[in-house]
Amino acid sequence: MKPKLKVWVVFGDGVKLGDGRAQLLELINELGSIKKAVARFGMSYRNAWGYLRELEKAAGFKILERTPGGGPRSGTRLTEAGKQFLKQYWRFRQGADEAIGRHFAKSFKKG
Amino acid sequence: MKPKLKVWVVFGDGVKLGDGRAQLLELINELGSIKKAVARFGMSYRNAWGYLRELEKAAGFKILERTPGGGPRSGTRLTEAGKQFLKQYWRFRQGADEAIGRHFAKSFKKG
Repeated sequence: MKPKLKVWVVFGDGVKLGDGRAQLLELINELGSIKKAVARFGMSYRNAWGYLRELEKAAGFKILERTPGGGPRSGTRLTEAGKQFLKQYWRFRQGADEAIGRHFAKSFKKG
Repeated sequence: MKPKLKVWVVFGDGVKLGDGRAQLLELINELGSIKKAVARFGMSYRNAWGYLRELEKAAGFKILERTPGGGPRSGTRLTEAGKQFLKQYWRFRQGADEAIGRHFAKSFKKG
Protein backbone atom coordinates (compact mmCIF):
# COMPACT_ATOMS: atom_id res chain seq x y z
CA MET A 1 0.00 0.00 0.00
CA LYS A 2 1.41 3.37 -0.97
CA PRO A 3 0.25 6.94 -1.52
CA LYS A 4 -0.29 8.58 -4.90
CA LEU A 5 -0.67 12.28 -5.37
CA LYS A 6 -1.27 14.96 -7.92
CA VAL A 7 -0.38 18.55 -7.18
CA TRP A 8 -1.07 21.89 -8.79
CA VAL A 9 -0.21 25.49 -8.11
CA VAL A 10 -3.41 27.54 -8.12
CA PHE A 11 -3.37 31.28 -8.73
CA GLY A 12 -5.82 33.63 -7.08
CA ASP A 13 -8.30 33.52 -9.94
CA GLY A 14 -8.37 29.73 -10.26
CA VAL A 15 -5.79 29.30 -13.05
CA LYS A 16 -3.86 26.10 -12.36
CA LEU A 17 -0.48 24.74 -13.27
CA GLY A 18 0.44 21.09 -12.79
CA ASP A 19 2.98 18.65 -14.22
CA GLY A 20 1.48 18.59 -17.72
CA ARG A 21 1.48 22.33 -18.17
CA ALA A 22 4.89 22.73 -16.57
CA GLN A 23 6.20 20.20 -19.10
CA LEU A 24 4.52 22.13 -21.90
CA LEU A 25 6.36 25.31 -20.85
CA GLU A 26 9.67 23.42 -20.72
CA LEU A 27 9.03 21.99 -24.18
CA ILE A 28 8.15 25.39 -25.68
CA ASN A 29 11.45 26.70 -24.30
CA GLU A 30 13.40 23.75 -25.65
CA LEU A 31 11.89 23.85 -29.14
CA GLY A 32 11.58 27.67 -29.28
CA SER A 33 8.05 27.29 -30.57
CA ILE A 34 4.56 27.02 -29.08
CA LYS A 35 3.39 25.41 -32.31
CA LYS A 36 5.97 22.63 -32.29
CA ALA A 37 5.48 22.02 -28.57
CA VAL A 38 1.70 21.64 -28.77
CA ALA A 39 2.03 19.33 -31.78
CA ARG A 40 4.22 17.02 -29.72
CA PHE A 41 1.80 17.31 -26.79
CA GLY A 42 -1.30 16.52 -28.83
CA MET A 43 -2.92 19.75 -27.64
CA SER A 44 -4.62 22.33 -29.83
CA TYR A 45 -2.73 25.56 -30.48
CA ARG A 46 -5.84 27.52 -29.66
CA ASN A 47 -6.21 25.88 -26.23
CA ALA A 48 -2.53 26.27 -25.42
CA TRP A 49 -2.52 29.91 -26.44
CA GLY A 50 -5.60 30.66 -24.36
CA TYR A 51 -4.10 28.92 -21.36
CA LEU A 52 -0.74 30.68 -21.66
CA ARG A 53 -2.43 34.08 -21.80
CA GLU A 54 -4.52 33.25 -18.74
CA LEU A 55 -1.48 31.93 -16.90
CA GLU A 56 0.59 35.08 -17.50
CA LYS A 57 -2.30 37.26 -16.43
CA ALA A 58 -2.81 35.21 -13.25
CA ALA A 59 0.91 35.07 -12.46
CA GLY A 60 1.32 38.81 -13.00
CA PHE A 61 4.54 38.48 -14.99
CA LYS A 62 5.64 37.44 -18.47
CA ILE A 63 6.54 33.76 -18.62
CA LEU A 64 7.36 33.51 -22.33
CA GLU A 65 9.02 35.97 -24.68
CA ARG A 66 9.53 35.97 -28.41
CA THR A 67 12.91 36.80 -29.90
CA PRO A 68 12.83 37.31 -33.67
CA GLY A 69 15.64 36.38 -36.06
CA GLY A 70 17.20 33.07 -37.00
CA GLY A 71 19.83 32.69 -34.26
CA PRO A 72 20.01 29.75 -31.85
CA ARG A 73 18.05 31.61 -29.12
CA SER A 74 15.38 33.01 -31.45
CA GLY A 75 11.77 31.89 -31.18
CA THR A 76 9.58 31.68 -28.09
CA ARG A 77 11.50 31.01 -24.87
CA LEU A 78 10.99 31.33 -21.13
CA THR A 79 11.73 34.71 -19.57
CA GLU A 80 14.03 34.82 -16.54
CA ALA A 81 10.95 35.12 -14.30
CA GLY A 82 9.40 32.13 -16.11
CA LYS A 83 12.53 30.03 -15.55
CA GLN A 84 12.60 30.99 -11.89
CA PHE A 85 8.94 30.09 -11.45
CA LEU A 86 9.39 26.68 -13.10
CA LYS A 87 12.47 25.98 -11.01
CA GLN A 88 10.39 26.61 -7.90
CA TYR A 89 7.55 24.48 -9.26
CA TRP A 90 9.83 21.47 -9.81
CA ARG A 91 11.40 21.98 -6.39
CA PHE A 92 7.88 21.87 -4.94
CA ARG A 93 6.91 18.90 -7.10
CA GLN A 94 9.94 16.80 -6.29
CA GLY A 95 9.66 17.25 -2.55
CA ALA A 96 5.88 16.74 -2.49
CA ASP A 97 6.10 12.96 -2.98
CA GLU A 98 8.56 12.73 -0.14
CA ALA A 99 6.49 14.91 2.20
CA ILE A 100 3.37 12.81 1.48
CA GLY A 101 5.33 9.56 1.81
CA ARG A 102 6.43 10.51 5.32
CA HIS A 103 2.95 11.61 6.29
CA PHE A 104 1.44 8.42 4.84
CA ALA A 105 3.75 6.16 6.85
CA LYS A 106 2.78 8.03 10.01
CA SER A 107 -0.97 7.88 9.28
CA PHE A 108 -1.09 4.18 8.47
CA LYS A 109 1.05 2.85 11.24
CA LYS A 110 -0.72 0.54 13.69
CA GLY A 111 -3.14 2.02 16.16
CA MET B 1 -0.82 31.41 -5.09
CA LYS B 2 -1.55 28.20 -3.23
CA PRO B 3 -1.15 24.45 -3.66
CA LYS B 4 -3.94 22.04 -4.56
CA LEU B 5 -3.62 18.32 -4.19
CA LYS B 6 -5.41 15.06 -4.74
CA VAL B 7 -4.33 11.94 -2.92
CA TRP B 8 -5.09 8.26 -3.18
CA VAL B 9 -4.04 5.11 -1.40
CA VAL B 10 -2.84 2.59 -3.98
CA PHE B 11 -2.78 -1.13 -3.25
CA GLY B 12 -0.16 -3.44 -4.69
CA ASP B 13 -2.22 -4.41 -7.71
CA GLY B 14 -3.17 -0.86 -8.69
CA VAL B 15 -6.57 -0.62 -6.97
CA LYS B 16 -6.98 2.94 -5.69
CA LEU B 17 -9.00 4.61 -2.98
CA GLY B 18 -9.41 8.39 -2.80
CA ASP B 19 -11.86 10.84 -1.28
CA GLY B 20 -14.79 9.85 -3.49
CA ARG B 21 -14.57 6.16 -2.74
CA ALA B 22 -13.89 6.73 0.93
CA GLN B 23 -17.08 8.81 1.04
CA LEU B 24 -18.96 6.03 -0.75
CA LEU B 25 -17.90 3.54 1.94
CA GLU B 26 -19.00 5.95 4.68
CA LEU B 27 -22.34 6.43 2.98
CA ILE B 28 -22.94 2.67 2.58
CA ASN B 29 -22.27 2.30 6.29
CA GLU B 30 -24.58 5.17 7.17
CA LEU B 31 -27.47 4.01 4.99
CA GLY B 32 -26.84 0.29 5.52
CA SER B 33 -27.19 -0.27 1.79
CA ILE B 34 -24.92 -0.27 -1.24
CA LYS B 35 -27.93 0.35 -3.44
CA LYS B 36 -29.11 3.46 -1.60
CA ALA B 37 -25.55 4.80 -1.37
CA VAL B 38 -24.80 4.47 -5.09
CA ALA B 39 -28.14 6.06 -5.95
CA ARG B 40 -27.18 9.12 -3.94
CA PHE B 41 -23.71 9.09 -5.51
CA GLY B 42 -24.96 8.86 -9.09
CA MET B 43 -22.83 5.75 -9.65
CA SER B 44 -24.02 2.49 -11.18
CA TYR B 45 -24.57 -0.42 -8.81
CA ARG B 46 -22.62 -2.66 -11.13
CA ASN B 47 -19.55 -0.38 -11.07
CA ALA B 48 -19.70 0.07 -7.32
CA TRP B 49 -20.03 -3.66 -6.73
CA GLY B 50 -17.12 -4.45 -9.03
CA TYR B 51 -14.98 -1.83 -7.31
CA LEU B 52 -15.85 -3.02 -3.80
CA ARG B 53 -14.92 -6.61 -4.67
CA GLU B 54 -11.61 -5.47 -6.16
CA LEU B 55 -10.92 -3.27 -3.14
CA GLU B 56 -11.45 -6.07 -0.63
CA LYS B 57 -9.31 -8.42 -2.66
CA ALA B 58 -6.52 -5.82 -2.88
CA ALA B 59 -6.79 -4.88 0.81
CA GLY B 60 -6.75 -8.52 1.89
CA PHE B 61 -9.54 -8.09 4.44
CA LYS B 62 -13.31 -7.69 4.46
CA ILE B 63 -14.34 -4.04 4.48
CA LEU B 64 -18.12 -4.49 4.38
CA GLU B 65 -20.36 -7.10 5.96
CA ARG B 66 -24.03 -7.85 5.60
CA THR B 67 -26.19 -8.42 8.64
CA PRO B 68 -29.64 -9.79 7.83
CA GLY B 69 -32.81 -8.94 9.75
CA GLY B 70 -34.67 -5.72 10.30
CA GLY B 71 -32.88 -4.27 13.32
CA PRO B 72 -31.15 -0.88 13.39
CA ARG B 73 -27.71 -2.41 12.57
CA SER B 74 -28.96 -4.71 9.83
CA GLY B 75 -27.97 -4.20 6.21
CA THR B 76 -24.49 -3.67 4.78
CA ARG B 77 -22.06 -1.96 7.16
CA LEU B 78 -18.32 -1.49 7.61
CA THR B 79 -16.44 -4.26 9.39
CA GLU B 80 -14.16 -3.29 12.29
CA ALA B 81 -11.18 -3.61 9.93
CA GLY B 82 -13.01 -1.42 7.41
CA LYS B 83 -13.67 1.25 10.03
CA GLN B 84 -10.05 1.17 11.13
CA PHE B 85 -8.83 1.52 7.56
CA LEU B 86 -11.11 4.49 6.85
CA LYS B 87 -10.06 6.15 10.09
CA GLN B 88 -6.44 5.90 8.94
CA TYR B 89 -7.36 7.14 5.48
CA TRP B 90 -9.01 10.28 6.86
CA ARG B 91 -6.09 10.86 9.21
CA PHE B 92 -3.81 10.68 6.19
CA ARG B 93 -6.12 12.87 4.12
CA GLN B 94 -6.52 15.59 6.70
CA GLY B 95 -2.81 15.93 7.35
CA ALA B 96 -1.85 15.79 3.66
CA ASP B 97 -3.03 19.35 2.93
CA GLU B 98 -1.02 20.64 5.84
CA ALA B 99 2.13 18.71 4.88
CA ILE B 100 1.89 20.01 1.31
CA GLY B 101 1.14 23.55 2.51
CA ARG B 102 4.33 23.64 4.54
CA HIS B 103 6.37 22.19 1.69
CA PHE B 104 4.82 24.65 -0.77
CA ALA B 105 5.75 27.66 1.36
CA LYS B 106 9.34 26.42 1.56
CA SER B 107 9.59 25.73 -2.19
CA PHE B 108 8.22 29.09 -3.32
CA LYS B 109 10.06 31.37 -0.96
CA LYS B 110 12.42 33.82 -2.62
CA GLY B 111 15.69 32.54 -4.03
